[in-house]
Amino acid sequence: MSVLGLVVEYNPFHNGHLYHLQKAKELTDPEVTVAVMSGNFVQRGEPAIIDKYARAEVALRAGIDLVVQLPLIYSIQDAGGFALGSIWTLDLLKVSDVVFGSESDNLKLLKRLAQIVVEEPQLYLERLKVHLKSGVSFPNARKYALRDYLALNYPGELPDIEEASSSNNILGLEYLAAIKKLGSTIRPHSIKRQGADYNDPEFKGSFSSATAIREMVLRGETERLKETVPDFSREILLREIKDKGAITLQSMEKLLMGLLRTTSRDEYAQYYGFVEGLDARFERCAESTSGIFDFLECVKTKRFTFTRIKRLVMNLLFKLTDEIVKNSWEKGPQYIKVLGFNEKGRAYLSSIKKNLGLPLITAAAQGKNFSRISSYEGVNLTVFREQFQRDLMGAAVYGLFQRGNLPDFEYKRHVIYRRG
Amino acid sequence: MSVLGLVVEYNPFHNGHLYHLQKAKELTDPEVTVAVMSGNFVQRGEPAIIDKYARAEVALRAGIDLVVQLPLIYSIQDAGGFALGSIWTLDLLKVSDVVFGSESDNLKLLKRLAQIVVEEPQLYLERLKVHLKSGVSFPNARKYALRDYLALNYPGELPDIEEASSSNNILGLEYLAAIKKLGSTIRPHSIKRQGADYNDPEFKGSFSSATAIREMVLRGETERLKETVPDFSREILLREIKDKGAITLQSMEKLLMGLLRTTSRDEYAQYYGFVEGLDARFERCAESTSGIFDFLECVKTKRFTFTRIKRLVMNLLFKLTDEIVKNSWEKGPQYIKVLGFNEKGRAYLSSIKKNLGLPLITAAAQGKNFSRISSYEGVNLTVFREQFQRDLMGAAVYGLFQRGNLPDFEYKRHVIYRRG
Repeated sequence: MSVLGLVVEYNPFHNGHLYHLQKAKELTDPEVTVAVMSGNFVQRGEPAIIDKYARAEVALRAGIDLVVQLPLIYSIQDAGGFALGSIWTLDLLKVSDVVFGSESDNLKLLKRLAQIVVEEPQLYLERLKVHLKSGVSFPNARKYALRDYLALNYPGELPDIEEASSSNNILGLEYLAAIKKLGSTIRPHSIKRQGADYNDPEFKGSFSSATAIREMVLRGETERLKETVPDFSREILLREIKDKGAITLQSMEKLLMGLLRTTSRDEYAQYYGFVEGLDARFERCAESTSGIFDFLECVKTKRFTFTRIKRLVMNLLFKLTDEIVKNSWEKGPQYIKVLGFNEKGRAYLSSIKKNLGLPLITAAAQGKNFSRISSYEGVNLTVFREQFQRDLMGAAVYGLFQRGNLPDFEYKRHVIYRRG
Repeated sequence: MSVLGLVVEYNPFHNGHLYHLQKAKELTDPEVTVAVMSGNFVQRGEPAIIDKYARAEVALRAGIDLVVQLPLIYSIQDAGGFALGSIWTLDLLKVSDVVFGSESDNLKLLKRLAQIVVEEPQLYLERLKVHLKSGVSFPNARKYALRDYLALNYPGELPDIEEASSSNNILGLEYLAAIKKLGSTIRPHSIKRQGADYNDPEFKGSFSSATAIREMVLRGETERLKETVPDFSREILLREIKDKGAITLQSMEKLLMGLLRTTSRDEYAQYYGFVEGLDARFERCAESTSGIFDFLECVKTKRFTFTRIKRLVMNLLFKLTDEIVKNSWEKGPQYIKVLGFNEKGRAYLSSIKKNLGLPLITAAAQGKNFSRISSYEGVNLTVFREQFQRDLMGAAVYGLFQRGNLPDFEYKRHVIYRRG
């Protein structure tokens, strides 16, 4: 059975996403299409502009049959953690094919690089260490280490290693690496992306990046959205923003700065990713800046990028300790949280439910029934609680910044069902 | 030498405070008047409406010679902790007399009750336990226990124990108890308060409560302030509010709710004061309410009053664990943080500096020089850091909610000096 799996954030859903979905369907001719989607907090280390239920609604309108949530613990991590959690989820959902976007569409090269990244040959690790020591960011250090490794082992070749370093290719590489690590039978495919890189802040017409589109929304340029966002996405986006507001890192400024200003240097070490003097930088910058963007600028170095620092702030907010993150890396997702489905998606979910070995969560309250949860053979209750609690926190914190400020946010939400 | 000591919050300074100061001076005819004042967070478990430097400025204008800060760790605690920290600070400052306000002006009764509270005879403790078990608040349980104790030991008497239960008399009782506990030579005096109880929300003309005055300020009724607040206090209050805003618990809502919504039940137990099921109540109410006042209402019971819950939220915000609070109860203040003085106050401070055994802090940066700090015989460096770090946090968090949102708030502030 052909089941197409996609890893998405849809923050917000735009023409580029629609193009990718259509091409992916053409390529794999699936009976069912499943998406694993970031929840209220996304891989940029920020809140999504509209909440996960609204984005799931858009995904269903776009033609996805089943939308499940990537647990927060994976969704706010770097490409490696994000890809691992996503692929693991799709593998649990018995997906047969994954199609990701890439700048190069050179799947062969990416697979080769993924193999090196997973197998970690000695020479590669040594070069990685050397480049990391020079102070560049991890993605760059890895790119240079891969280049060195290939040059030394295959002196006759000249693969375009630059290609592998764009943000989408990094994710692609990590998807491939995750498939290898998990020994998954998922078949990977890539489609060349149309238009702007997803970080590109400039408006590029019908294929603008999500970043550029969010900026348009925040500037109130809702008419121009029509050029770059499908009607159904624009409709839901504007409805949500009208009712609840557009949520940004800025919305959370007082909470985040207050948190940073009450965290002392020696507390940081326990949280995932706080390495080499970051504790001192965080303490100093929390004291000496007054806004969250000033804070991020203050902490930023060549090695520690803006996005990486935002993710660290999220690790602090959601109390993701080293141990908790590593547990999740090792044990994988402990449940499938369903955000939305149509009839086809619902039927598919029923068909795989029995062999899942993990609880399906369609309403938050189910996650509190620990005796039921622990009856699933695949569940480690400690890790389940670590993951599920963060999803609840994510929803509760996010809800705080939505207009109307709904209490019990997560408990009152149900799976989005789309007819037909 | 007659040195008058006062324990104040001046949140804000009003006619009742001026009356008390004048009467206290008449009563003790002091050469110097010293006030220990709450910093940016006050005993109600809330931020002060204007910051500590502005309030110190008002205190100097009112005729106080030296204003020092009560460390935050004491200022946000119940009457017992607040009084202990305050009296301990005044004792360190070699104050000869303390004058406090009381509703009854029955110092003899209060002293007798303080003796029971400090000596804790078996019968008193048993009755206290019984009343606490019935579910009433601690102040009420203590009042009933004292009544029972006196009735059983002195059956022929009928002291007016109701008197001892008003908020000011509770503080008075605790001042007396602290003097006894510390074996201090400070002479206590009391003055009957004029006008409204300090919690009274109603406007009562020239002697309105600080609560009523803050409400007036928040409603923008700045003209009516003239009736109830001395000109110099009004002037500084309005200047501060114009420049930086009036800070309230409401200002901090997103920070506090975000904090509560990311704190899990098992984390509460480590913080001071979280007893008997409060963890579960906090967790449930953080999920099911969306504003800080709704949250407080939700947690409130007969036993756990509004103010007590606000203090618990502050203990959480400032990470005051059981151990940290108990260290401060045992070791006392580890430094004297000077907020303001006039020439007389400065000279007095110089005269006692040598025998203080503790560091005088006139600029925040001094508190980071640990080798100097630990050279003082009276200092326990661990406790020093616990206390001083909270003062820095208090300033940093408070500054976040002031307009202009000043970074390095505490480091850039100097002692307020008033000529003449």
